[in-house]
Order: sequence, then C-alpha cells, then structure tokens
Amino acid sequence: MLERFLVPEKDRVFVHPERMLAATTEIFEKCGQSPDDAALSAEVLLTSDLRGCESHGVSNQLRVYVQMYGDQQINPTPNVRVTRETDVTANLDGDTGLGLHVLPKAMEMAIEKAEKHGMGAVTVHNSRHIGMLAYHSMMALKHDMIGITTSAGNPLSMVPTHASEKLFATNPWAWAAPAGDEAPFVFDVATTQVAGNKLRLAERIGAPMDSAWISDPDGAPIMKQTQLPVDYHILPFGGTREQGSHKGYGFAAMAEIMAPILSGMGAGMFMPTVPRTIMGHYVQAVKIDGFIDPEQFKDDMDRFLKRLRTSKPAPGENRVVYAGLPEAEEVKIRQQNGIPYHREVVEWFESIKAEQGLEFELV
Amino acid sequence: MLERFLVPEKDRVFVHPERMLAATTEIFEKCGQSPDDAALSAEVLLTSDLRGCESHGVSNQLRVYVQMYGDQQINPTPNVRVTRETDVTANLDGDTGLGLHVLPKAMEMAIEKAEKHGMGAVTVHNSRHIGMLAYHSMMALKHDMIGITTSAGNPLSMVPTHASEKLFATNPWAWAAPAGDEAPFVFDVATTQVAGNKLRLAERIGAPMDSAWISDPDGAPIMKQTQLPVDYHILPFGGTREQGSHKGYGFAAMAEIMAPILSGMGAGMFMPTVPRTIMGHYVQAVKIDGFIDPEQFKDDMDRFLKRLRTSKPAPGENRVVYAGLPEAEEVKIRQQNGIPYHREVVEWFESIKAEQGLEFELV
Repeated sequence: MLERFLVPEKDRVFVHPERMLAATTEIFEKCGQSPDDAALSAEVLLTSDLRGCESHGVSNQLRVYVQMYGDQQINPTPNVRVTRETDVTANLDGDTGLGLHVLPKAMEMAIEKAEKHGMGAVTVHNSRHIGMLAYHSMMALKHDMIGITTSAGNPLSMVPTHASEKLFATNPWAWAAPAGDEAPFVFDVATTQVAGNKLRLAERIGAPMDSAWISDPDGAPIMKQTQLPVDYHILPFGGTREQGSHKGYGFAAMAEIMAPILSGMGAGMFMPTVPRTIMGHYVQAVKIDGFIDPEQFKDDMDRFLKRLRTSKPAPGENRVVYAGLPEAEEVKIRQQNGIPYHREVVEWFESIKAEQGLEFELV
Repeated sequence: MLERFLVPEKDRVFVHPERMLAATTEIFEKCGQSPDDAALSAEVLLTSDLRGCESHGVSNQLRVYVQMYGDQQINPTPNVRVTRETDVTANLDGDTGLGLHVLPKAMEMAIEKAEKHGMGAVTVHNSRHIGMLAYHSMMALKHDMIGITTSAGNPLSMVPTHASEKLFATNPWAWAAPAGDEAPFVFDVATTQVAGNKLRLAERIGAPMDSAWISDPDGAPIMKQTQLPVDYHILPFGGTREQGSHKGYGFAAMAEIMAPILSGMGAGMFMPTVPRTIMGHYVQAVKIDGFIDPEQFKDDMDRFLKRLRTSKPAPGENRVVYAGLPEAEEVKIRQQNGIPYHREVVEWFESIKAEQGLEFELV
C-alpha cells in the first residue's frame, strides 16, 4: 500500500495475530456461523491483516458483516449447492452466505477438477463479500497450480471512462503463481484507481486523494490533490482516457462478465442496492503439470522473480519489488511483532465484546 | 485509438479490404507459407485493419515479417507439434513459425477441448508474433465461448514500476465475450501505457507522447508532453506508482507467467535479442454452457452492454462506449469505404510488388 494509507504511529495498537484470530472467530460464531466456517472466515481476514492489506482485514470488514448478520442480510448457515456442473466447470448457489467461507469451497472444487483434468473453474452466484481475493487464489499454490479469482456486484462506485454514472463496483482480480525459493507471485488489485476499502482507511486517517483518483458526481475527473469530498465517483485505474482509464474499465467489465453474468445473476448495475453487498464470483485453478514440469516452472519463476527484485532501481527509489514480495515480508514481521491496528479498531472490538458478552482477550 | 494516432487526412489512401487481403496473402505465399497459412495470416492482419487497429495491421507488421522471413528468422512451414496434453490443456512447440497462423490452431484445440469438457487452454512455445490478440480470442465467440489470449517474449520495452531497466515486452491481454444483438465485448490491450506499434505509428505521423507514457533511460517517468526521444523506456499502464503503474506491471508479469514461463521458455528477459520476436502464447476458451444457459448469458450481456453505451456521458464527452463497440462500427464503415492507409504504406506495397515480381493490384 502507499505510505499515506498506513495507520499513523501514534494511533497504533499491536495485537498478536493468534489473539485477533480467536476474537474474530468468536464474533463470527456469535453471528451464527458454524465453528469451522467461523474459523475459516477469520483466517481469511487475518491473512489480509498479516500481509499488510489492512484495507481488507478486520478493521473495515468485520463491523459491516456483523451489522449485515444483525439485519439478516447474510445467511450464517447457507446451503451451498451445485446448479450446473461439467468435468471442469461448475456453478454454485451461495444461498446468501458470506463469501469468506463459501468461496474457498468453490476453489477447492476447482482445484479438484484441475487435479483430475488439468484445469477447473467455478462460479458462485447469490453470494456476499469474499474479503481479500488473494486468499482464494493462493489456495492453488500448494497444489502447484495457478489460482485466479474475480468478483463483482454491488455496491456501485466506479464510473466508466467518459461516463457520468457509477456502473461498477471496484471489480477486483487476483492471480497467484507458485515459485520455488522466492516468495510466490500474488497480484491482487481493484480495477478502480483505489480500492473502496482504502477510501474508508483514508477517511479514518485523513489521507489525501491524488489527482485523477476520483471524479465529481458528473464524471469529470478531479485533477488536483484533494480530501475525499462528500459526493464523488471512483475512476477506473488509469484515471483519464489519455492515461489509460479504458484499461481499468475493460478489466472491470471482464470481472462483471466472468463473475455475476457468467454465474447467472446479470450485471451488478441491475441488482437491488439492499443488502449492501450482493456478489457473484469466479475462481479458476490451472494445473502447471498440464503444460510443463512444475519443477521447471518453479525454477523459471525463481529466476524471473529474483531478476525483478534485484534490478537496478530508478533514481530516488530504494528497490524494485514484485506483487506478493512486500506482503510475504510483512507476514514475517507481523507474526513476530503483532499487527498494528488503529486504536479505534481495538475500541470497536472491546465495545462488541462488552455488548455481546464475548470472552476473547486482545491484549 | 486516440485521435493523435489516426493517419492524417492528407496522407490517406483508401484501399478495398479484399484487394489488400489478396496482396497480403500473395506476399505471405512469396515468403514460403502454404496457401492456407498465407490466407489465414493475411486474414488476421486485415481483421485488425478493418477494426481500426492499424497499429497491428499490415502497416507496421508486414514489412517486419517479410524481413524476418528473408533473414530466416521465421520458419514458413513449421511442424507444429504437441509436447504435453491433458483433457483440457496442451502445450505446443511452434517450431519458430509465425504466430499469426500457428496460434489459431492452438485456439481451435482449446475450443475443441472446451466443447467436450467445459474449458480448454493451450500454450505455445518457440513461436513468433501473433498480430492483434483480439483475433484469437474472438475465434471463441461463434461457439458461445469466452476467449482469452496473452503473449510475451522479446523485444523488451517496458520498465517495471520503480525500475531503471526494460524487463518486459508490451505483454498484451485480450478477452472476448459473446452478446446477442449488441456487438460483442472485445477487450485487447497492451499492459504498457501505449502499445509498441502505436509508438511506430506516432513516429510516422509525429504524434506527441502524453505525460507518464514513457520514462527516460534511467526509469524516471517523463511527466510532460514530448516528442518521442531517441532513448526511452515505455512505462506500465498507470504510468507512475501513484496512478497505479504497479497494476500494469502486475498484468504484464501475469502475461509473462501464463505465456512464455508456463509454455516452458522462461521469461522474455532471458531470451536472446535476435531474432527480433521470440514469443510464448496462452489461449483459453471457456464454454458458457458449463455455467449457465448461453441464451441467458447473451441476454444479460445485451442488457449490460446496452446500459453502458446508452449511459449519460460526462461533460464534454459525446458518448460512452465499451471495448469492441467502436471497432465493430469501424468494420462496417471500412468494408464500405475501404481502409485508409498512410500513402507511405501503399508505396511500400508497390515497391515490394516491383522487387519481387508480384501480381496484386491495390487500386
């Protein structure tokens, strides 16, 4: 993440990941999830926090989920079932369950199909938020497979190139590919200039918006640095047409096509605005052994990734990284030192603990 | 394409597509290709010119291919063979043949596998340039499938975010998804700020570079409008880190992983610089019927695409388009009026006709 999104030093409270995992699991159980689903849901959020992607960890997401469970907008015990299936594809009805624990089941199916046939892909309709996409794509890594995830639905936040209306969510993509000695390549990005959850982080810490990150309500890109206005749209990555916003728009449209449309829900722009997240997902596993020897692949990946991270930096830059490297480094640091949360987040945990009579101890 | 890349009116010579197709086929046959391969190669280039993507049509590409055939850097009669195969995957040795006619065979295999099993993907190693990627992805459309294509190798032109060295080619991606009454969604983009062939167009017509399209030879982004300097690198899409160049870099890296690395060639950055193009490719076909009824999919696509193209434009903009719509419109116009080539391109055709004793008539 950019420096501006980090929690300011004065507001940091370090929490041991195991304690936060236990607290989060307890909260999900209190929401009605089974112990297994609660443990899995918590693991997805904590993986995000450990990797330094607090935009998608407990800080922003958990309170939204708790509220949605309270409003009965998420089914805590969904009956996930297959609505169509072939040798290598399937479509699942998520039964309005939380994607955090529903989507891993879809990726497990895709991996099983890939193990047998060389590749597998599974869509999920009628689902809710899936957290950090990288978690799901990374499930493929230990099977010597490449993992691909995308998701779309509502709420809408992105204005297409040259348009004045919000017609897409942040429609992210995540790819994960295994390596040997190097940290795996894990690439997880919104197709907007900035992820929706990063905007909520920015509100919390007062970080400024860069030029061409957002547009005014008419769709005109705001071309100067600014604090987040009350009313705005997020631009597709690229920002302006000259800087390639049609590419962000195109990848956003492909997420829409592969996830909600291919899973049978239609585009997110036609979905009701309540509940707050209605989503379709797409996961794919690609078995490397279907193309070449996985050991050769991982050797070639090591050579490739090492060449990237050891290449000479541009003037004023410290080093060159690849997607997944800083995150893997952060996991080691945070497992040792704890995860730095904003004190306001820790206060929320204490308040829900008191309110619901929970037992966890964060510190 | 941006306005600045169009051939200036005073330099336009209109050629009927059938005549240009015949001329190009004759030239490929003269290079040693079989009549079938020559017709297919010409069709790929003309599809590009008809769609208004002259960056990837005969103007830039054909003379490069002719020179490479002359230098024996492309095998006119490759023995394309399968090196590994599963139910839904395969890896092909392209035997240094031109990707224009080799890759359609890979996509045919992927489609056949998808027809049987729900999905298919084929990599090609040891290949040459494939022209406009969209051609290959679009092959899937008439089978009610989604087509995906990516390619990478050399020559290198892109500097990764914060790096000072060129470590990637322009590593494009193309996705095609069918619709019913609307023009299909066809999204074909380089992961650089600007395609390599557009820079060659820019040189020919003197178009300026926008800010953050290119960097100086140390990797520092050039932040003002400029003519193309002698020595430069192309930036990943996004341009600068703040504007999301790590996203362009990430999609470029995924092209590298899915095409040359997964096909067993290793990354393009380790390939020899001669011959001028050595490439690996990846194609995938996704059968819609493996997930939902294709008629429902196409209805949902029509609704989605129509909503995009009829949405209210931002101030100062004429309309909102989606990827593939302007190209489909251009095909109709150019089939009627002919294709506007730069007179310098037509002169090249006349000179090669004289030099090699060919028979075509362009006008």
